[in-house]
Amino acid sequence: MESIEIVGLVAATLTTSSFVPQVYKAFKNKSTKDVSLTMYTVLLVGTLLWLVYGINIQSMSVILANSITSLLAVLMLILKLKYQ
Amino acid sequence: MESIEIVGLVAATLTTSSFVPQVYKAFKNKSTKDVSLTMYTVLLVGTLLWLVYGINIQSMSVILANSITSLLAVLMLILKLKYQ
Repeated sequence: MESIEIVGLVAATLTTSSFVPQVYKAFKNKSTKDVSLTMYTVLLVGTLLWLVYGINIQSMSVILANSITSLLAVLMLILKLKYQ
Repeated sequence: MESIEIVGLVAATLTTSSFVPQVYKAFKNKSTKDVSLTMYTVLLVGTLLWLVYGINIQSMSVILANSITSLLAVLMLILKLKYQ
């Protein structure tokens, strides 16, 4: 693998996993007042479109990163609606 | 342009612009208690690496999307540190 592809994989891992501490914080504190519902709604539509794109171009990285981010966005939307 | 590339561009526009309502909410309410500092720190490192990747593979979409998301992540970090 070219070293620049490793940079891309690390970048994808970081941007995807960045949502984990936000989900954890919302779950732990049972408070999401300051979290934007619009943000996670728009994000979810975006990651689902990325998923369509990834399946179409058969990119495992795009499929994997956006499946996980979609799941985390759904979790945040549930927590937002439950604890706002 | 192939129609699947339009799906990719719409996806990139949505995932990037999703952070705008969060920045606006934090700015308007002057409150970021429920927003995760770790999330935006990890996100910023990730989008900066995506930027390195985009410059290396000369992808204007990757460069543009991650320049804007990096800027929005920096704004959220400033608002988080100011209003937490």
